[in-house]
Amino acid sequence: MSLEAGNDLESLIRIIPDFPKKGIQFLDLTTLFKDPAGLRKVIDLFYDKYKGKEISQVVGIEARGFVVASALAYRLGCGVSLIRKPGKLPAETISKSYALEYGTNEIHIHKDAVDKGEKVLLIDDLLATGGTMAAAVELLERLEAEIVGIAFIVELGFLNGSEKLGKYPIHTLIHKD
Amino acid sequence: MSLEAGNDLESLIRIIPDFPKKGIQFLDLTTLFKDPAGLRKVIDLFYDKYKGKEISQVVGIEARGFVVASALAYRLGCGVSLIRKPGKLPAETISKSYALEYGTNEIHIHKDAVDKGEKVLLIDDLLATGGTMAAAVELLERLEAEIVGIAFIVELGFLNGSEKLGKYPIHTLIHKD
Repeated sequence: MSLEAGNDLESLIRIIPDFPKKGIQFLDLTTLFKDPAGLRKVIDLFYDKYKGKEISQVVGIEARGFVVASALAYRLGCGVSLIRKPGKLPAETISKSYALEYGTNEIHIHKDAVDKGEKVLLIDDLLATGGTMAAAVELLERLEAEIVGIAFIVELGFLNGSEKLGKYPIHTLIHKD
Repeated sequence: MSLEAGNDLESLIRIIPDFPKKGIQFLDLTTLFKDPAGLRKVIDLFYDKYKGKEISQVVGIEARGFVVASALAYRLGCGVSLIRKPGKLPAETISKSYALEYGTNEIHIHKDAVDKGEKVLLIDDLLATGGTMAAAVELLERLEAEIVGIAFIVELGFLNGSEKLGKYPIHTLIHKD
């Protein structure tokens, strides 16, 4: 691992072997979120990166993405918008399906979640293969938002997910090679 | 509706008829969350209520509960712990099933999410029948946490959900009768 944020954040992440299936080393961020100094440091590092950029919405992806999106939105003084699984958002949505190793997933956003031209930051807890975030990018492009950046707490570099995210600047606190 | 927090918060909530099924008037809080002043006011009102109470964890319920739990935890300077649906938490959990109108739901929390005797605040976006929050209370009691309070943005008073929540003080920003 290489760390922009120092070893202390990494030490708060718990590795769970064979979850959700055999052979996967799951990075459990709940141990980081429940640590007061850890939660504060994550949000303050993102705040320092994105303050002054006139972001008016932080857009988080269900469900762990909501944890970081909401606190950061509060810190930045902007709103938080939600990208959710099918059937969860009650008003009119646009959606995007994307392939998984087996089967497909679909994510939705309210049509009025962001305005045309609005400056948004897209955020999730972890960048793996990038399929979900690439779908989220497409949703925001269809809404004609201005994507100022894409942020993650952790990036699994060996999965090359960032290659799916095109031209947008990516910021990650912890890079795992 | 009676409002402790003033009409401005209520005006940011969108009512969606017949969601998720015919006859239900769904209160859509995404329009409140995406409003910078609305998000700020919700978190600041809860902060004013709970500051100085030595809360060390705000516990949020998946998924909209994460939005308010995380920002409030950041504001209070404490951690955020997550109560989730089955299969989502990677380490050892305890769980509670509870009845719905048709069928059952089950929620989980990591066994080490909170320490014995730790002061926690339980929070969700909306109190309806109270089944989910009553299950969450039981999980925290089994972990021997000290529940300082239970908080919601909106309470649907006509469903009498607060009666399921026993002895713990409930705080709600918007009461709908």
